Amino acid sequence: MTTFSTERPVAEALDAADPLAGFRDRFARDDPSLIYLDGNSLGMLPLATADRLTQLIREEWGSGLIRSWDRWIDLPWQAGDELGRCLLGAAAGQLLVTDSTTVNLYKLASAALGARPGRRVIVTDDDNFPTDRYVLAGIAAGQDVQLRLISTDIDEGVTAADVRAAVDESVALVSLSHVAYRSGALAGMAEITQVAHDAGALMLWDLCHSVGSVPVQLDQCGADLAVGCTYKYVNAGPGAPAFLYVRRELQQQLRQPVQGWFSQRDQFAMGPAYDPAPGMRRFLAGTPDVLGITAVAEGVRLLGEAGIERLRAKGIQLTSYLVELADAWLAPLGFALASPRDPERRGSHVCLRHPEAARICQALAGAGVIADYRDPDRLRLGAAPITTGFTEVWDALDTLRQITENQVYQEFRLNMSEL
Amino acid sequence: MTTFSTERPVAEALDAADPLAGFRDRFARDDPSLIYLDGNSLGMLPLATADRLTQLIREEWGSGLIRSWDRWIDLPWQAGDELGRCLLGAAAGQLLVTDSTTVNLYKLASAALGARPGRRVIVTDDDNFPTDRYVLAGIAAGQDVQLRLISTDIDEGVTAADVRAAVDESVALVSLSHVAYRSGALAGMAEITQVAHDAGALMLWDLCHSVGSVPVQLDQCGADLAVGCTYKYVNAGPGAPAFLYVRRELQQQLRQPVQGWFSQRDQFAMGPAYDPAPGMRRFLAGTPDVLGITAVAEGVRLLGEAGIERLRAKGIQLTSYLVELADAWLAPLGFALASPRDPERRGSHVCLRHPEAARICQALAGAGVIADYRDPDRLRLGAAPITTGFTEVWDALDTLRQITENQVYQEFRLNMSEL
Repeated sequence: MTTFSTERPVAEALDAADPLAGFRDRFARDDPSLIYLDGNSLGMLPLATADRLTQLIREEWGSGLIRSWDRWIDLPWQAGDELGRCLLGAAAGQLLVTDSTTVNLYKLASAALGARPGRRVIVTDDDNFPTDRYVLAGIAAGQDVQLRLISTDIDEGVTAADVRAAVDESVALVSLSHVAYRSGALAGMAEITQVAHDAGALMLWDLCHSVGSVPVQLDQCGADLAVGCTYKYVNAGPGAPAFLYVRRELQQQLRQPVQGWFSQRDQFAMGPAYDPAPGMRRFLAGTPDVLGITAVAEGVRLLGEAGIERLRAKGIQLTSYLVELADAWLAPLGFALASPRDPERRGSHVCLRHPEAARICQALAGAGVIADYRDPDRLRLGAAPITTGFTEVWDALDTLRQITENQVYQEFRLNMSEL
Repeated sequence: MTTFSTERPVAEALDAADPLAGFRDRFARDDPSLIYLDGNSLGMLPLATADRLTQLIREEWGSGLIRSWDRWIDLPWQAGDELGRCLLGAAAGQLLVTDSTTVNLYKLASAALGARPGRRVIVTDDDNFPTDRYVLAGIAAGQDVQLRLISTDIDEGVTAADVRAAVDESVALVSLSHVAYRSGALAGMAEITQVAHDAGALMLWDLCHSVGSVPVQLDQCGADLAVGCTYKYVNAGPGAPAFLYVRRELQQQLRQPVQGWFSQRDQFAMGPAYDPAPGMRRFLAGTPDVLGITAVAEGVRLLGEAGIERLRAKGIQLTSYLVELADAWLAPLGFALASPRDPERRGSHVCLRHPEAARICQALAGAGVIADYRDPDRLRLGAAPITTGFTEVWDALDTLRQITENQVYQEFRLNMSEL
């Protein structure tokens, strides 16, 4: 038997020893009793971001008006460079903050096909996030390309062996999520990228569920392309713009299909012919979302101050603690872990399976614990390292135990409108 | 001789009689001496929008967190419907606020080609806004389609006769701007749409420079497709999301290429295969920009309150007054009108040509009058009807006259970074 104690003072001691505990007060907490385990869907509001956006709106837009474009014009790559430096292990000049993950994925995957003429297969996995699968399927259908799906163990995620079995010299692009949206399984970026490269394919990573919670080393892993969103662990707000990464050596070879004026070499000459900008700017499209990028920059700054290695260490501690409490309290009530047990193999959220997961998730919300539900039977508990405390994990799981033991969830009707 | 008087009291009388004058106070004016004639590039900040965004950030995001998606999820079509009702003459269920103009143009133009198989030509004009020309060129190049350019009289804009001469049974799509970005020339939407339809082509209108200043009757004109931005006359802020319109009868026939999860019929089932939503929702892509759409809704509300017919009447008055002053004061100093003289044939901005236009524009800014410059020799003066007063027009043109007469502009070096 383990000596693991399920007493609350253990959680209190972990909070007291947490070097990042002070960061929790830098977020809006109007309802101090609310336990928020859904930062993996929509991150909390950093107080500095609220202030910065107010200033941007009143001063830069309201007073500065069109003159403020002198500073705004550089935001997509300024924010991108900081994202790369603080969170993604990418040297400057390889990242932009712009558009949505979906649009960026479309741009980069299309460009990748153009850079591997003759290769007519895209590889992804059947549990990749829906927008990834749908976008890739659309590109494939439009270009007479085959979308080859790796069949994945949902709880454990994609392995290098899975990818090795799926690639050959017909493959132009392998596109996978770094952290799986349901299980939280963390893919081996370096090893899988090497497998793709060995087959002569380009490798595109979706970092939506890892950026800001798991250190990413894009340059070191030799990743070719990446996309990801900023409204989860980067705390940039609902619908904030996404990012895209293109390895420096590839930039000149790639042409993305959405030839907007922000990607033109000499944008304000407004000349007759399209001529893509030489560096990353060619992966922009239309006018970038100034408010959104500014919120991204604030979110990145805060995470950078906390430090991604410390955030990762805390994330591992949090999810490990959560799994230990789940083993002790919830397994006897019919819950099963639906995430990798090894903390090094998962991101910062954990899934638990239970036949009544949908209604339990609603009952939890009624009791002031926000988690989310994923079809068909998964309760997803996110422990965003910068905003989550150990006592919150303890209280949430204690509430979950009581709801399940007392079948409180039976009062709840299903409502599937959650994100 | 005309009885036109160039005395300032005339402008004061026009302001006193202006039924929309009160709306000018509903915008941020930190520097009351600033004359802003660039609302056609970036609209001013409505005070209500600043308050609404603060509330959204603090309450809906900060306190509501993920739970606020219950209301956010409907924003793209709610804001779209209001835009259609107040400004674009479109019945509900045909407009979405999402993505950038560039991305929306890409989605709709690509979809249009798919709906006209066998037709291998897109028609546009050589003075269309750069992003339109570049995007269409990109789509054409990617699909072995020819981009046929109408050669336009820049100052007068595209006519129905120009379009008639350019279309035949090979044309899939005609794509034009409603108001030309340089001259402000207003194209005949109903007549040109009919010309496109007579040739069996679909018609796509770019409304960037007309929405919010010129009444648009999309349904009545039989327009098939439209896109436009919201950061100009709609006053939704820098990089605010754009809109797209698809005529109801066409929606089921069109498939757009960016198959994101927000366009999936049953989005949260996250099922294996892409199945586009039945109505407008299929033209969404990724997660929409909640802050941006909210600002669009506020901007539309304000314009709707003023009334687009009244805004148009004032816009005609403003630009006519501007042209009369220019004739009296500036023509003798080497300025030439570079916009249609008939006010019914132009939008709410006016261009004046002068060999020193670039430096004059900078000198104007130095004197507190913000206009903009367009290559090679055009000074663009925007008179956004909801924010511009007649005395501002008088003061701006008086300043312009003095700068030119005294050659003040010679002190200025060229700086091309303006938008």
